[in-house]
Amino acid sequence: MKSLMVFQTDFTYKEGAVCAMYGVVKSVDRELEILDGTHEIPQYDTWSASYRLYQSMKFWPKDTVFVSVVDPGVGTPRKASVARTSDGYYVVTPDNGSLTHLKKLVGIDEIREIDESINRLKGKGTEDVAIFHGRDVFAYCGARLASGIISFEEVGPSYPVDEIIEHEIHKPEISMNRASGIIEIPDPNFGNSWTNIPLKEFKSAGFEYGDMIDVVIKNKDQIVFDKRILFHQSFGFAQKGQPMIYNNELMNIAFAVNQGSFLETYGIGYGSDWTVEFSKETAK
Amino acid sequence: MKSLMVFQTDFTYKEGAVCAMYGVVKSVDRELEILDGTHEIPQYDTWSASYRLYQSMKFWPKDTVFVSVVDPGVGTPRKASVARTSDGYYVVTPDNGSLTHLKKLVGIDEIREIDESINRLKGKGTEDVAIFHGRDVFAYCGARLASGIISFEEVGPSYPVDEIIEHEIHKPEISMNRASGIIEIPDPNFGNSWTNIPLKEFKSAGFEYGDMIDVVIKNKDQIVFDKRILFHQSFGFAQKGQPMIYNNELMNIAFAVNQGSFLETYGIGYGSDWTVEFSKETAK
Amino acid sequence: MKSLMVFQTDFTYKEGAVCAMYGVVKSVDRELEILDGTHEIPQYDTWSASYRLYQSMKFWPKDTVFVSVVDPGVGTPRKASVARTSDGYYVVTPDNGSLTHLKKLVGIDEIREIDESINRLKGKGTEDVAIFHGRDVFAYCGARLASGIISFEEVGPSYPVDEIIEHEIHKPEISMNRASGIIEIPDPNFGNSWTNIPLKEFKSAGFEYGDMIDVVIKNKDQIVFDKRILFHQSFGFAQKGQPMIYNNELMNIAFAVNQGSFLETYGIGYGSDWTVEFSKETAK
Repeated sequence: MKSLMVFQTDFTYKEGAVCAMYGVVKSVDRELEILDGTHEIPQYDTWSASYRLYQSMKFWPKDTVFVSVVDPGVGTPRKASVARTSDGYYVVTPDNGSLTHLKKLVGIDEIREIDESINRLKGKGTEDVAIFHGRDVFAYCGARLASGIISFEEVGPSYPVDEIIEHEIHKPEISMNRASGIIEIPDPNFGNSWTNIPLKEFKSAGFEYGDMIDVVIKNKDQIVFDKRILFHQSFGFAQKGQPMIYNNELMNIAFAVNQGSFLETYGIGYGSDWTVEFSKETAK
Repeated sequence: MKSLMVFQTDFTYKEGAVCAMYGVVKSVDRELEILDGTHEIPQYDTWSASYRLYQSMKFWPKDTVFVSVVDPGVGTPRKASVARTSDGYYVVTPDNGSLTHLKKLVGIDEIREIDESINRLKGKGTEDVAIFHGRDVFAYCGARLASGIISFEEVGPSYPVDEIIEHEIHKPEISMNRASGIIEIPDPNFGNSWTNIPLKEFKSAGFEYGDMIDVVIKNKDQIVFDKRILFHQSFGFAQKGQPMIYNNELMNIAFAVNQGSFLETYGIGYGSDWTVEFSKETAK
Repeated sequence: MKSLMVFQTDFTYKEGAVCAMYGVVKSVDRELEILDGTHEIPQYDTWSASYRLYQSMKFWPKDTVFVSVVDPGVGTPRKASVARTSDGYYVVTPDNGSLTHLKKLVGIDEIREIDESINRLKGKGTEDVAIFHGRDVFAYCGARLASGIISFEEVGPSYPVDEIIEHEIHKPEISMNRASGIIEIPDPNFGNSWTNIPLKEFKSAGFEYGDMIDVVIKNKDQIVFDKRILFHQSFGFAQKGQPMIYNNELMNIAFAVNQGSFLETYGIGYGSDWTVEFSKETAK
């Protein structure tokens, strides 16, 4: 059975780029099945591209081919690559940080640079296009891989996994009554902020549902949020309009405002520069 | 042949929730076909969820499985259910008002509460997620039903159709030269407002294309719109910028502004609290 | 093998119209495969509808059926039609300018008016709907064609290709050190403006990467942009925030602001009224 293809980009559906990409896929092999991951990654945001891959990948069947095109460096010497993860998925992407979370949290077994002499669309008069590789390189090469026209080895030459471009991630640190990490990603629709601290580790530090916990969120050295707030299972335990700590759908620690937006109320961003510290006074 | 799956949520495509849900479906059964209803239901708006199901369902093949996840009460004791409509469709949804229009206007033959001991995703480390059931409960259970892995009876225990949570709907009332009902839903893209009064009943009250009709729209007791306007077949009959009455694509009475937005011009909302009255002076 | 169906509309996913259309397709033939072109064409903008068809069509397999519903004249005598392009695709669309680019730049071999006595949805109580043909006429007829239930000849009577409604397009004019054309379309997501001047012709006028070129953009007679700017292969060659000329993914000349929005910075529109002139001082 041919591999599924899941696409994510920062193109939106406002113009014809997604449609052209999907046409290329169907022209490679009519039987390929395409699903939208999202086309609303924030523009040029390779951190979000990286996180969104990580967030949903494990729920898909093995061998699914993810095509991720958030490519601020198109036209520069950044590599166009296909990675194979340790748990058996493929990612077709510019090597520009979009593989950060998969590499650190799942593992990448092998990565190959796309050989454009073979795996680039020809015959449509677009051979010299320098500013858009989603259609002619990433979709085309991904479709050939998903279809079985080429093997992973035929993508192009492999290069060391160590050379994959990565964003920095401040790993969670846990000690008794303390935990720290980063604001990893927003849930922009519901206005929540997700940290990279697993619930399990958080609880091992001694935090329990019902606790009031001191939270300090910083953007680099600047304190953006500094409050004692409730940790509980779901939003309804907090008063309306009040911030709280809960655990999200990936079983990580997260912030919400009950019936409001934590993101907007407190102006919280995300990424390596956004650190968070939790601490609890010990009953003495 | 396996049932089609149609999804509607208030998640948007801004983050990875839809992608994760669809991955779950494809992991249950690679052959299942997924179509987007919409992921832009207004947030937490179970009334709109209810209306959108009703609006499009009858155009689909019988046995189609609709998965509707607008779920402000996730984490509270609201039921996670699958309903079977009188005309042969399935709806997987929180029982929170999202079935209102189908129950009142189409009929629901049977409803069953999802048995999470069987029909909840396992093995991905998300067994304790309390704030998001779209992926682990609704998509998973819906996929099993659409695939034929479980029968409708195997969803879980049935409960009385009378217990289904419903929003109130003020039914249309018709008499000679008078009609009343509610503003049922907006067409946000084109700026129109749709009532729940069928054209056929409206005409039976004596209203005819070309008539000037008195319209009063209230939000609870407050009058929001009070004008005499034209009733006609399409927008072009009204002057540019003028409000008018027409019949919409479901053959119900609706309001538009020719080349403008009725919604924005007059600040019109929707739901049980938005009533509308039509009357016509009789020629004497 | 049945034809693929690609849809583009100005409906958005905010309400149930797309879902109802797709239901109609699947009710005609469960095996038909539907792909989103886009549902975010600017409202009533038949020029953009025309351009988006042209932009992506050639990347799809032959015989693909495109359904394009941007239909400001619904309810008026505009024709509902199916065109066959010279390169072997079908377009189901109101004949209202949406075929402009395909006719001028690709060629249309034949066009037929949809016979609604045969190719309109019946039995759903929507026979008299006058304000929305996407579902009952365009999707329904397109599905019958894609499925092979009807041949192209059975769509309805053909009429002269010359009668197809077209927008005016100012063709590119090229002479030594000069080129002129129109601002054909925006790339709204990345803030770029695309002209209708092919790179190949542009270069034949003597313009080369690295040149500083005088650009005048007019909206009708009013000058909106008048600057000497760089022409180069990709954005990085311009200084941050500076406007530049590059060639886009269709190998046409285009404008960008490096890490900014050309559209917003200079207030640039598109269409027949937006002309552009390039000229270069000759070294003497």
